[in-house]
Amino acid sequence: MQEFRALANRLADEAGAIIRPYFRAIETSESKADESPVTVADRAVEQRIRDILEQERPQDGIFGEEFGIKKSANGLTWVIDPIDGTKPFISGRATFGTLIALCEGDEAVLGLIDQPIVKDRWVGVKGERTTHNGQVCRVRVCPTLKDARCSSTSPAMFFHREPEFLKNWKRQVNFITWGGDCIAYGLLASGHLDLVIEADLKPYDFLAHIPIIEGAGGLMRDWQGNRLGLSSGKEVIAVGDPALLEGALGIVR
Amino acid sequence: MQEFRALANRLADEAGAIIRPYFRAIETSESKADESPVTVADRAVEQRIRDILEQERPQDGIFGEEFGIKKSANGLTWVIDPIDGTKPFISGRATFGTLIALCEGDEAVLGLIDQPIVKDRWVGVKGERTTHNGQVCRVRVCPTLKDARCSSTSPAMFFHREPEFLKNWKRQVNFITWGGDCIAYGLLASGHLDLVIEADLKPYDFLAHIPIIEGAGGLMRDWQGNRLGLSSGKEVIAVGDPALLEGALGIVR
Repeated sequence: MQEFRALANRLADEAGAIIRPYFRAIETSESKADESPVTVADRAVEQRIRDILEQERPQDGIFGEEFGIKKSANGLTWVIDPIDGTKPFISGRATFGTLIALCEGDEAVLGLIDQPIVKDRWVGVKGERTTHNGQVCRVRVCPTLKDARCSSTSPAMFFHREPEFLKNWKRQVNFITWGGDCIAYGLLASGHLDLVIEADLKPYDFLAHIPIIEGAGGLMRDWQGNRLGLSSGKEVIAVGDPALLEGALGIVR
Repeated sequence: MQEFRALANRLADEAGAIIRPYFRAIETSESKADESPVTVADRAVEQRIRDILEQERPQDGIFGEEFGIKKSANGLTWVIDPIDGTKPFISGRATFGTLIALCEGDEAVLGLIDQPIVKDRWVGVKGERTTHNGQVCRVRVCPTLKDARCSSTSPAMFFHREPEFLKNWKRQVNFITWGGDCIAYGLLASGHLDLVIEADLKPYDFLAHIPIIEGAGGLMRDWQGNRLGLSSGKEVIAVGDPALLEGALGIVR
């Protein structure tokens, strides 16, 4: 796994170098058919990462947000979201990130979140301790829901739920901050947040977070409490303190 | 005004120096009676700013979030929010900021937003061009609501409205990002966002933004379309392109 960890770090270094000049350069965005804005940087990063992987790991599969799926010949698949959080990126907010996951079959065994402006990088490897900027990090002790510091990207993720959903969630916890984006999962692994609940995610939006959070002592599950993998979608719960999981499942049930 | 601009910059420098060591040091938070978390840094910053103002501007009034009101003897009042966005601060997200406004009577004539981690500083002075990190900045041309990039801090600001409020807003615009915090107003002045709608604000939450946004070509109003001042509360609209104001008022009406 040390070889994969080094490769993931190198991919993230390349991504950050491409992204930085585009940040807050507002002429570079356009709309995809699904209305989510996407930038030139998004495509340039994924292309660069794919080029490196195809050269150095030709047997591995690739599943990227921008350019789709290359089948794996050996059971390993790299899952890439070049810029997770294109709306904050376009809005000039440094809460977006590059997400890199490595799956063995269905299971994420390595995950990396990189925020190249604030310079936050979390790396998780199955069976190892998660690091933030090279230092081991850990979730916060927070066994009761009423003390939980929560985060989620957008209330629109819950528009399909009953109108009281957000009020009920807010009433049961310490607070909810919004606009969490991928950085929220890293901040949870570092003990600054306790609970993230999100919906409408694709596998490349959450696979990287699993080894990061679990290697920091937390749990990541779907809304039924099941483990998540490459074939999962699209509703996730991340808790720092594992004792929060039951309460968190109660919120979404 | 140059003297006041220099003083505001100096106050923000002092604030940032106090804040930085506390950022992501998670042992420093506690709860106020109203449940909003507040940090040791919050109080230390306001105390430091008050000490400087009392020494150098003894006749000026001070209205701070933490330590209340000192009456003005000359019509000038400094309005201070030492850490606007204590929830993101506690969550480790660099979207909080120090807000400094100078009011002449009811009117904000100088405003400063400082984000000491990303190092973003916006300064607006009545009748002058707004600057971001010392460079003149300007709002974006965006005359139609359907193209507007929107931001707001929390859906809880709209829980008192009809359940369809957020869906209706989302339907009418390009996108809404959440967790805007004070930084959203600066990003609007720099042309990255077009529309901010918020409620439940105190004067120290929005006064600094007025000269910043208006000096960048935008408008800031209450939900009835009136100008905002020291005695205003608590619902605000900020638009980059002035042509957006009518449409924005239509969203909240």
